[in-house]
Amino acid sequence: MKVGDRHYRSLWSEGPGGPVHIIDQTGLPHVFATRALDSPEAVAEAIVTMRVRGAPLIGVAAAFGVALAISREASDAALDRAVRALAATRPTAVNLAWALARMRRRLAPLSPGERAPAAWAEAQAIADEDAALNEAIGRHGVELLAREHAARGRPVNVLTHCNAGWLATVDWGTALAPVFLAHDRGIPVHVWVDETRPRSQGLLTAWELAGHGVPHTLVADNAGGHLMQHGRVDLVIVGADRVTRRGDVANKIGTYLKALAAQANAVPFYAAVPTPTIDWAVDDALAGIPIEERSGDEVRLVRGLDGDGRPATVAVAPPATPVANPAFDVTPAALVSGILTERGLFAAREESLRALRPVARDAAVAP
Amino acid sequence: MKVGDRHYRSLWSEGPGGPVHIIDQTGLPHVFATRALDSPEAVAEAIVTMRVRGAPLIGVAAAFGVALAISREASDAALDRAVRALAATRPTAVNLAWALARMRRRLAPLSPGERAPAAWAEAQAIADEDAALNEAIGRHGVELLAREHAARGRPVNVLTHCNAGWLATVDWGTALAPVFLAHDRGIPVHVWVDETRPRSQGLLTAWELAGHGVPHTLVADNAGGHLMQHGRVDLVIVGADRVTRRGDVANKIGTYLKALAAQANAVPFYAAVPTPTIDWAVDDALAGIPIEERSGDEVRLVRGLDGDGRPATVAVAPPATPVANPAFDVTPAALVSGILTERGLFAAREESLRALRPVARDAAVAP
Repeated sequence: MKVGDRHYRSLWSEGPGGPVHIIDQTGLPHVFATRALDSPEAVAEAIVTMRVRGAPLIGVAAAFGVALAISREASDAALDRAVRALAATRPTAVNLAWALARMRRRLAPLSPGERAPAAWAEAQAIADEDAALNEAIGRHGVELLAREHAARGRPVNVLTHCNAGWLATVDWGTALAPVFLAHDRGIPVHVWVDETRPRSQGLLTAWELAGHGVPHTLVADNAGGHLMQHGRVDLVIVGADRVTRRGDVANKIGTYLKALAAQANAVPFYAAVPTPTIDWAVDDALAGIPIEERSGDEVRLVRGLDGDGRPATVAVAPPATPVANPAFDVTPAALVSGILTERGLFAAREESLRALRPVARDAAVAP
Repeated sequence: MKVGDRHYRSLWSEGPGGPVHIIDQTGLPHVFATRALDSPEAVAEAIVTMRVRGAPLIGVAAAFGVALAISREASDAALDRAVRALAATRPTAVNLAWALARMRRRLAPLSPGERAPAAWAEAQAIADEDAALNEAIGRHGVELLAREHAARGRPVNVLTHCNAGWLATVDWGTALAPVFLAHDRGIPVHVWVDETRPRSQGLLTAWELAGHGVPHTLVADNAGGHLMQHGRVDLVIVGADRVTRRGDVANKIGTYLKALAAQANAVPFYAAVPTPTIDWAVDDALAGIPIEERSGDEVRLVRGLDGDGRPATVAVAPPATPVANPAFDVTPAALVSGILTERGLFAAREESLRALRPVARDAAVAP
């Protein structure tokens, strides 16, 4: 997507050997800066600190992290070390495990001498496929928005939580791909943007929408239920970090609350995901999906710009205040109207999602 | 309640003529400061800017605002002007209208010469009654906590939203009165404190609980559903700005989302209110209760302490970002397990709440 007049992906490679460039998302929406990553350690740091974030994007970043590692040392041990270190960066998004498993599957059978070019080619393929998958999600999803618009004869009000726009993927985004495409096609759409505390990824969403000229309104996470009660939300679309084969959706903390409000107010609730986000292995989403617990300082400290326009951090809570900071929650399939994928819209239940299941070798498995 | 070794109310009077003192809540939890209010305009400013906040407390503050006005000029016109100006400060909490109606009812029949001493006495009576009502709420509510503790044999986990502690009232608080009392009686209790964006009144709650030695954990507003799904919340207690005779609860924005999650996870959800918070007039809560829309800057700007420990504000969103900021929402009675009042626990339905209805002259009416 465009930043000013220039087209950007959220991550791009200079080709074999690296470096890999990212948009450093920790500065947004205030400071647009890119960052060159020249080692798997730098990639791991960027994932842990959320310079890159979003389930699809961290999968792609990890794949390039393996390529950087293999360029340095192509042994079995080095491959194993890189995959393990990158897999440990964040626990909830399944795309990370999926991309690392794919890299290992591609590289392990090769001799060390063949590995580096194959690693760069595979990482680039994962990146390009991600952009294509998301564009396809957009093409399917725009039909939902067109239908709502036709039925209502006024701008369609979408509510989204967190950032599932192009910054969360290589390009296009998942939840926002249909929104960008609708706007491009002249279907009037307005987006309610959840702030998404504590990391406030809603500000990334607002930045993306402003950049694309899509009307939007930022709201506190607390507001969504009230908006739905008053008929001001036509549909909810979110991304996801993991969808189970039964249609349960693990996504940014607070998603579940919006899904409850959507059901209570007969508002359709969709999760938009490329199929690599589907975890075919986990049985019980509440018990089986690890929910990352992040630092309490993400709640205690807030970053922004000070009165002089300089990046600054303020403490909203004293350092001694006990904080819990679970980063994701699980929305049960019963609250989900549909799973929007690159292959179309599927009901959030096993019999329906089964059609998306890849042959065994592509399935997400522990890396 | 105590701040350090000294007992404070959130508002106190020096007696007839004023001034009236408040704890300026805009500085908390970082800066504890009191402020002297010597005119009805100063009281109105303090209510609008939320130096004083909380439905019961703004009712009491408005009553003293009338007393300050009458000390300056005791005519019918002056009484009318003061009541109108104070009534316009905030729209949602019914206690404001209730307290102003009570002041008018007491003062209007008197001759101007009799009004000033009567005004100060009535305002003080409203303040003293508020403290007594809340203490009574605590005595009834502690039974709920004692029962949970007896049933579970471990600390009781309460979730609360916004601040309905002693700062929101004259003393004790509504939702937190049972918590303080349980702690004093040796019933182990732990409180999940919703941050409560955008004004982050949860930080006031955390400050109160820390001051009283009650174990607590601050969480983003998004976390409550996840905590309830995992059995980590035994009951939800919130205050309210208005409860209808049918048991619908208007409270801080986001309360409705927690009530939905409580019902979905079989967690009891209580609103704790003194009976002046019950609005006997409104029929349809969603249509009939005015929901205050506050400045978008409350979402865009965040206050805290900078790295040097000085109060500072950062912009988290650019000034051009469109923002909606509804301050309250309505939780339908069907989601409410009970209304906890100074007269005990009542079911959230008309047949039950009817017993609390005052004789006509005390009912809340437009001031």
